[in-house]
Amino acid sequence: MRIGLLTGGGDCPGLNAVLRAVTKSLIRQCGAEVIGIEDGFLGLIERRVRPLGWDDVSGILAIGGTILGTSNTASPFAWRGADVSADVVAYQRELGLDALVAIGGDGTMTIAARLGAVGGVPMVGVPKTIDNDIAGCERSFGFDTAVATVTDALERVQTTGQSHGRVMIVETMGRYAGWIALEAGIAGAADVILLPEIDYDVARIAEVCRARSARRRATLVCIAEGAKPAGGAMTVERTVAGSPDPIRLGGVAHRLRAQLQPLLASEVRATVLGHVQRGGSPTPFDRVLATQYGNEAARLLRRGEFGRMVTLQGGRLSSVALASVAGQNRCVPADHALLACAREIGVCLG
Amino acid sequence: MRIGLLTGGGDCPGLNAVLRAVTKSLIRQCGAEVIGIEDGFLGLIERRVRPLGWDDVSGILAIGGTILGTSNTASPFAWRGADVSADVVAYQRELGLDALVAIGGDGTMTIAARLGAVGGVPMVGVPKTIDNDIAGCERSFGFDTAVATVTDALERVQTTGQSHGRVMIVETMGRYAGWIALEAGIAGAADVILLPEIDYDVARIAEVCRARSARRRATLVCIAEGAKPAGGAMTVERTVAGSPDPIRLGGVAHRLRAQLQPLLASEVRATVLGHVQRGGSPTPFDRVLATQYGNEAARLLRRGEFGRMVTLQGGRLSSVALASVAGQNRCVPADHALLACAREIGVCLG
Amino acid sequence: MRIGLLTGGGDCPGLNAVLRAVTKSLIRQCGAEVIGIEDGFLGLIERRVRPLGWDDVSGILAIGGTILGTSNTASPFAWRGADVSADVVAYQRELGLDALVAIGGDGTMTIAARLGAVGGVPMVGVPKTIDNDIAGCERSFGFDTAVATVTDALERVQTTGQSHGRVMIVETMGRYAGWIALEAGIAGAADVILLPEIDYDVARIAEVCRARSARRRATLVCIAEGAKPAGGAMTVERTVAGSPDPIRLGGVAHRLRAQLQPLLASEVRATVLGHVQRGGSPTPFDRVLATQYGNEAARLLRRGEFGRMVTLQGGRLSSVALASVAGQNRCVPADHALLACAREIGVCLG
Amino acid sequence: MRIGLLTGGGDCPGLNAVLRAVTKSLIRQCGAEVIGIEDGFLGLIERRVRPLGWDDVSGILAIGGTILGTSNTASPFAWRGADVSADVVAYQRELGLDALVAIGGDGTMTIAARLGAVGGVPMVGVPKTIDNDIAGCERSFGFDTAVATVTDALERVQTTGQSHGRVMIVETMGRYAGWIALEAGIAGAADVILLPEIDYDVARIAEVCRARSARRRATLVCIAEGAKPAGGAMTVERTVAGSPDPIRLGGVAHRLRAQLQPLLASEVRATVLGHVQRGGSPTPFDRVLATQYGNEAARLLRRGEFGRMVTLQGGRLSSVALASVAGQNRCVPADHALLACAREIGVCLG
Repeated sequence: MRIGLLTGGGDCPGLNAVLRAVTKSLIRQCGAEVIGIEDGFLGLIERRVRPLGWDDVSGILAIGGTILGTSNTASPFAWRGADVSADVVAYQRELGLDALVAIGGDGTMTIAARLGAVGGVPMVGVPKTIDNDIAGCERSFGFDTAVATVTDALERVQTTGQSHGRVMIVETMGRYAGWIALEAGIAGAADVILLPEIDYDVARIAEVCRARSARRRATLVCIAEGAKPAGGAMTVERTVAGSPDPIRLGGVAHRLRAQLQPLLASEVRATVLGHVQRGGSPTPFDRVLATQYGNEAARLLRRGEFGRMVTLQGGRLSSVALASVAGQNRCVPADHALLACAREIGVCLG
Repeated sequence: MRIGLLTGGGDCPGLNAVLRAVTKSLIRQCGAEVIGIEDGFLGLIERRVRPLGWDDVSGILAIGGTILGTSNTASPFAWRGADVSADVVAYQRELGLDALVAIGGDGTMTIAARLGAVGGVPMVGVPKTIDNDIAGCERSFGFDTAVATVTDALERVQTTGQSHGRVMIVETMGRYAGWIALEAGIAGAADVILLPEIDYDVARIAEVCRARSARRRATLVCIAEGAKPAGGAMTVERTVAGSPDPIRLGGVAHRLRAQLQPLLASEVRATVLGHVQRGGSPTPFDRVLATQYGNEAARLLRRGEFGRMVTLQGGRLSSVALASVAGQNRCVPADHALLACAREIGVCLG
Repeated sequence: MRIGLLTGGGDCPGLNAVLRAVTKSLIRQCGAEVIGIEDGFLGLIERRVRPLGWDDVSGILAIGGTILGTSNTASPFAWRGADVSADVVAYQRELGLDALVAIGGDGTMTIAARLGAVGGVPMVGVPKTIDNDIAGCERSFGFDTAVATVTDALERVQTTGQSHGRVMIVETMGRYAGWIALEAGIAGAADVILLPEIDYDVARIAEVCRARSARRRATLVCIAEGAKPAGGAMTVERTVAGSPDPIRLGGVAHRLRAQLQPLLASEVRATVLGHVQRGGSPTPFDRVLATQYGNEAARLLRRGEFGRMVTLQGGRLSSVALASVAGQNRCVPADHALLACAREIGVCLG
Repeated sequence: MRIGLLTGGGDCPGLNAVLRAVTKSLIRQCGAEVIGIEDGFLGLIERRVRPLGWDDVSGILAIGGTILGTSNTASPFAWRGADVSADVVAYQRELGLDALVAIGGDGTMTIAARLGAVGGVPMVGVPKTIDNDIAGCERSFGFDTAVATVTDALERVQTTGQSHGRVMIVETMGRYAGWIALEAGIAGAADVILLPEIDYDVARIAEVCRARSARRRATLVCIAEGAKPAGGAMTVERTVAGSPDPIRLGGVAHRLRAQLQPLLASEVRATVLGHVQRGGSPTPFDRVLATQYGNEAARLLRRGEFGRMVTLQGGRLSSVALASVAGQNRCVPADHALLACAREIGVCLG
């Protein structure tokens, strides 16, 4: 059995742990040959692969990023304006692959499945999203690490806020789903947590800040990059004209700052965490989780269950048909237990 | 409504997060008065309590230990040879308590329930076990932190092992259940993981070590303090005669070392992690989890659901009748998914 | 003996360690009374002080920020347009202070000295600068912590850079002195380190990036917020029009990104660390250093050596006349050993 | 120019940072060829070497341990009872080495120098001691990391101590010099710090514990493994009979526990940190320091200054003749500033 492995889309802590588990499990359980494909689908297009042996994946469990490399955009169906999927399928045959393990987000897995549909090898998917927003998947690896990184940042900023009696705004990842802001906000003792799922009310937030500063307390605001004011259109791009990457420039944190400052006596400061949230060594929790995801993918392969994606549901690893979840996002539902919990202990959710 | 709060049994990261969530939730949701009882039941016996207000529990989320203090042994039913439960019940009345929230292990909650049965106030329990071994409770707060601490230690010891080509044995907590050794062992890339639930075979472990050192690799062994060799009686106390605290002296790690060294050419070293595993600031994961446990306890109180213990099942907070779980331990079942996963990626489980 | 204590200027890890050491040392060595002044000079203006006893400063060693609070701007010589120094001097007398310990930057100490000159109590200064740029002071507390925070961020960003083959730019604090960027850049294995002291050459940096990506390697750039291109005027404010806080918006990192991207095939990304660099618990190194600074201040007080600032020179604590260092900055000298070291191991310094 | 590189003696954080800096500096500054010798002198005896190129030492800065491996005991002058130094010298010639960089403790460097004296290649030494006790060297790499590890452990144990009102004893490395216990003790807010350099008085320590528990406070004791009671013989081996490694079993911590418990009402607990103190990724401080040590060694080589050891004095890198420091230990002098500082803030030093 020859199995191809690739990681696609954005960097995420735990990718190497998945690669290690898939490879070790396949080698040990069925003596499979594992072929590592470099830089996601780009490696299939540019024909860059390398064998992955036991020693190649030893010692990488705790290393951030992916030893295979990844690419965000390369699709064989639209590569520099052309459809090169036929060449990619031919290359898969040359390599003698029996199946492909695609570790990535929605896009990566959809492409892998489409390749199978046009004559390529069958695939098994391992969901990868630092935002924890893949449908049918309770908790994805990398998320716990991102939450830990953001929580650490919130604590650091908090000490400054308290020393100066300021309102500190920290912007986290999460354009469509607010999981990171919600969990890190609670773990970092944020007083206000703003998510894409709940439009916020500037006046209400200002009230919270004033009430706290009246008691000589700082206010810590944790805002997801996709959060928006009630009624307010998402006009970040325009507010920070000419910037090469508006979102990364912290549109929402700086916009909220501009909205709040006129309403408050205390200083308001904004910080955008940006790329630090994606990187670093996975937490022990994520190492165990990613190892389970990888091992489960190897099991699906051994059982010949193709076109499926590994999932975690009710605390157990299992799988769903890729088709059944493709193109869907998992946002924070309005009735989510953590939202109620946050409200009941006094967190302002917008 | 006046509610008493106490923490009993051993220290555990997240206790303050629970105290904070219970208190804030009770004050905010029903304007309750919260009374903190010092040093577990000792505070009820010695009449040492203090009010807990909003500000008393602000800023303690990330602090390890318990601001109320705790005690391992004090039971009103057997206090210095006497049964002082009547005085304790009387004191509860004097305090005007309507209910008691007991955060602790099996013993703590059983005593709290027994007090209710002899005329004391009704109770709600929050399970506390760093070993993650309370029946009916999927994942307890403090466990993730302990796993992180042990994983960090395994990684440190690993660098020494690799530099010297040694066999390194690290002893973790877990006298009856091996959860910490299992998860930390996987997260710390241990080659051998030994649990109380699976008797180990010294010859087989020696084989693993020899095979690895033949490939110039070190071997990392993670052993729970309750693990024992097949057939071998648990004779730690006798092997380390005259020590004030045999288990803490690392009976099992040093015994395993003594068993392995004669069978191996490479050096074998043993380390006992001991008390460091209990302490420290909770991980973000544990802060969120402990906050949910505390808030759920406040909900049970508000709904008047007494004699129950908060639990986590299928990823959701709920509760069980204390009677239904008292006196049971949750060990690692032989068919647990993580055991299979570990085996499939090549970990030796004894 | 009654001693006033205040912390002024920006937040810095280790302030509480200094407060603890000064207070414990004064109480223990000469039974002094210590008065904590809130929010820097603002506390003297608004008459907000509180006694600091042994227990008040116990358990704060590892806590970030300052328990006394601080303020950046409040000067008794120019308070809301008026000179209120006479009232402040009068208030010092009312409090019966014998001396003042001012922990802060250049501004804070100069004001404290000026107060003494117009009839206020004599002062002793403890230098506080996260940028490590106070003249006459080899290494200031807080700096090691900031370097550790930035190094951690560089490592996180590095994993993303490597996975994607990108050029990652990380902006650190340091408007006038590049110490943080230099040490964190070396500790974080940055390939390019850009300081305010050395104007950089965009073409040369692009060359480094191209050479590395030709070998399929990412490039990590660590740039201090005060770094500027050769000949290029500092036009950040204009490039990010209408922003409430241009520097915080990452002027230099995003400008460099805009300069580099046209010259490179690989993606360039920029991150601005911002406020996270000031906060958090001090490293053990900084705890020891801050404790020594605080204790040395108490010694100067006991010996009646006023108008002086504690310093670290040649690895030893001592002091200098405040007048001799006021108004001077300590930049990275062109012949500094670390610059030569960085160059010799192949780091591009601009 | 062909240079041999070896690491000898115990594992220490920063070894890879030194290897990286020496190699990069030599390749870049004089196009030298660098030969890595495996497992210290064992590699010269068993003829196991490998070339070290630029890429071999890239990405290892933050990795604990040594990629070359090390050995504690192998001496060419006494290898399995025979003197094989002549073969080793011959092998050095075969390899065409011009010089040898020995990174290690006293023993390693003395052997390297002796080899030069009997016809081997000249050597340059880089001092390596986690205990920070090498003569002529102010601060050695790895020490800051060990202090950070111990400080973290002290903080964890502290939370347990406070929650239970216990006396917690933590045993650190340091058989002859107490640097780690002293700095970590101060950074970890230990109430009692016991060093090999100062015999302790059990009665006095008990007094401190009683005074604290009278104020409902726990007591944290940090004791170096070489500390001993006044007059008391070092009888650890006998007290823990039959153990394979008495010191590692925590002789001194458990002996102190046995001595204190009878004198106190509060529980006394002991923990031995053991091997975790040697391992792990170096702190940013140690990465910078180790990089400087490595680069300085390359400079000595380029200048042909042989038989010398790199040192840090007065905060500057320089070197001393190996002969002038060999066989000497650097203990904590009785008049050391940190001892006075600790006493003045109320720490009991025995």
